[in-house]
Amino acid sequence: MTRMVTSDLNLTSDAARLLAYLRHDGPRTRGQLAELTGLARSTVSSRLDTLLDSGLVAHRRGTSSGGRPAGVLEFRPEARILLAVDLGATHGVVALTDLAGSVLALETADLDIADGPDVVLEWVVGAADRLLAQSGRPGSQLAGVGIGLPGPVEHSTGLPANPPIMPGWDGFDVPGRIRQRFDIPVLVDNDVNLLALGEHATVWRHADDLLFVKVATGIGAGIISGGKLQRGAQGSAGDLGHVRIPFSTRTPQHGEADADLEALASGPGIARSLSAAGLPMKTGRDVFEASRAGDVRVADAIRQAGRDLGEVLATCVNVLNPSVIVIGGSVARAGEHLVAGVREVVYSQSTPLATRHLTITESRAGESGGVIGAATMLIQHLLDLAD
Amino acid sequence: MTRMVTSDLNLTSDAARLLAYLRHDGPRTRGQLAELTGLARSTVSSRLDTLLDSGLVAHRRGTSSGGRPAGVLEFRPEARILLAVDLGATHGVVALTDLAGSVLALETADLDIADGPDVVLEWVVGAADRLLAQSGRPGSQLAGVGIGLPGPVEHSTGLPANPPIMPGWDGFDVPGRIRQRFDIPVLVDNDVNLLALGEHATVWRHADDLLFVKVATGIGAGIISGGKLQRGAQGSAGDLGHVRIPFSTRTPQHGEADADLEALASGPGIARSLSAAGLPMKTGRDVFEASRAGDVRVADAIRQAGRDLGEVLATCVNVLNPSVIVIGGSVARAGEHLVAGVREVVYSQSTPLATRHLTITESRAGESGGVIGAATMLIQHLLDLAD
Repeated sequence: MTRMVTSDLNLTSDAARLLAYLRHDGPRTRGQLAELTGLARSTVSSRLDTLLDSGLVAHRRGTSSGGRPAGVLEFRPEARILLAVDLGATHGVVALTDLAGSVLALETADLDIADGPDVVLEWVVGAADRLLAQSGRPGSQLAGVGIGLPGPVEHSTGLPANPPIMPGWDGFDVPGRIRQRFDIPVLVDNDVNLLALGEHATVWRHADDLLFVKVATGIGAGIISGGKLQRGAQGSAGDLGHVRIPFSTRTPQHGEADADLEALASGPGIARSLSAAGLPMKTGRDVFEASRAGDVRVADAIRQAGRDLGEVLATCVNVLNPSVIVIGGSVARAGEHLVAGVREVVYSQSTPLATRHLTITESRAGESGGVIGAATMLIQHLLDLAD
Repeated sequence: MTRMVTSDLNLTSDAARLLAYLRHDGPRTRGQLAELTGLARSTVSSRLDTLLDSGLVAHRRGTSSGGRPAGVLEFRPEARILLAVDLGATHGVVALTDLAGSVLALETADLDIADGPDVVLEWVVGAADRLLAQSGRPGSQLAGVGIGLPGPVEHSTGLPANPPIMPGWDGFDVPGRIRQRFDIPVLVDNDVNLLALGEHATVWRHADDLLFVKVATGIGAGIISGGKLQRGAQGSAGDLGHVRIPFSTRTPQHGEADADLEALASGPGIARSLSAAGLPMKTGRDVFEASRAGDVRVADAIRQAGRDLGEVLATCVNVLNPSVIVIGGSVARAGEHLVAGVREVVYSQSTPLATRHLTITESRAGESGGVIGAATMLIQHLLDLAD
């Protein structure tokens, strides 16, 4: 296996501040940058020289006159590429993006996360090589790898932590395995955190308090509070699926005094309740397909799952006071029934102050939401120097 | 009424950065500050001149030699004073602090928040004048006023927003009333947010994810995530008291299928359940006193309230993954029963990953926790330029 060393984006905080102005406010002169940052002109010059050398910043084209470059500098998102990976329980997406998070090329596959890290990461690395070859970009332009996994991850180390649906992955050195091929920064996070980041970056940029809930094989949430992704003390924030609530008064058909939310409202949970009602099915995909086919019993079961999820989200709304709740994942994509059930319970149970300006809506990011989130995480790490 | 104009702490972000180094890392020379901040020496000098003029920074004493001041500069927290106010449903605290949040003088009183803003704020202003007189400090040294109220507050305007236990306060211009006497920045927030800030600043400085829960006449929480107080989109984050849960399976003695947490576990809620059981009492204070007197029925009722609170906190633990939950308020001060009930439920219901390193403990800040929190809010606003 070829080993590449390409990590070169070691920005100082001064350089990151200069770059932030160019990224967010557009082209600027050296003098403007010195004024905006309060940095000494000599500091500005030396940091800009480094940024020009790295290619992240260039003189604006078409403005140079004669032999002397014009003074206007701009950010070049195409200077590097990022490898963004979204792994679900049964599906994977690998993409190349630029430093603005725009997808350049993408490959998807059905997979089984339970096949274990060797098989799954082999596919990831292979797909990355294929995409690099297609795009004609050398691997040396890769600046980082971001990976979302369908389970809890210790974000500081990138190691999966007791993931319930990922046999063989507990404590596996995912970054180490990727670095055997691409020796650059590798960040790993829970897929739902990345979906929240991606939805926030692309659709809800001005919502400082956003909850992204994924309902698929499992149920989890990514929490953005005060404009920042909140992972909690051990990185397990947003674990809605294991919230236990006495559901007996609300959902007598489940016949259980206590259950966790995932057992009731995930794809497999809905499949179980439909099977028990005489409509045999096994996975979330079965539920998805039967719903698409217009079976009203399936629609009812998904709506009930939405109500069960709404019970938990009503508490989240009182506790977090978000302005937006985005519901995604395969069960949400099966139609409007899930969101309808959530709305029914949340708007009747949460306090008026917390729901007056609350939007509850389906994810708009689609299949590439996860990889856009992975790219967003990388960009924040490499360019904003977050975390 | 005398009108004073004293607001003078209009720090630029450069000045705040310089001051932050002196506040947190101790005395520094001009050269060190230029190096630490990357600011131009001329910028450092001009900002330091402003800070020296304002008295916030001084040359370190005992280090000057001859006629020339030595080069070492230090932060002077005594340069200004802050007015910190904590108003509860039945009790108020007014304090003067320095710019490090140390309490210089303090006055407390029993009051009834339902007497309305005119009566209550009249006492606040009177107490402030008495404390200023006692301390011998002129009002011109006051740099800001921070006030905690026992209800929801729109933090951006300082206006109470539909506070349930504060008749007459809804939309009342609290900052405007205070500014009739002290024309300086006035910040208002929910009391529980300030208790969270105060506990975080004094006891749990290194806990980035902390939940402070106050159990008194009402029940609410202040949420610190990622090291920052999170108020949510409308400032109503942490409203645990109005979480509705079907309690029938857990607390049959309450005889209600559904109730909100406050109805079950607040001081008056506990008093109601004891009255219904033949032990007549009315307020949280009655409960507090009966518990202090060692009545085992009261201890049992408080423990049950702790379990009910634990039901809601178990969800919060899965969702927020805090490393510390601090329980305060008069019901918590009645003994260890409340925290014991909370622990019983949270450690059995939340996921192992979220509870493995979770501390659940009583507040240590005591009666001055609220005013220390109010001072912390002011210091962050005036010196850190937060919010």
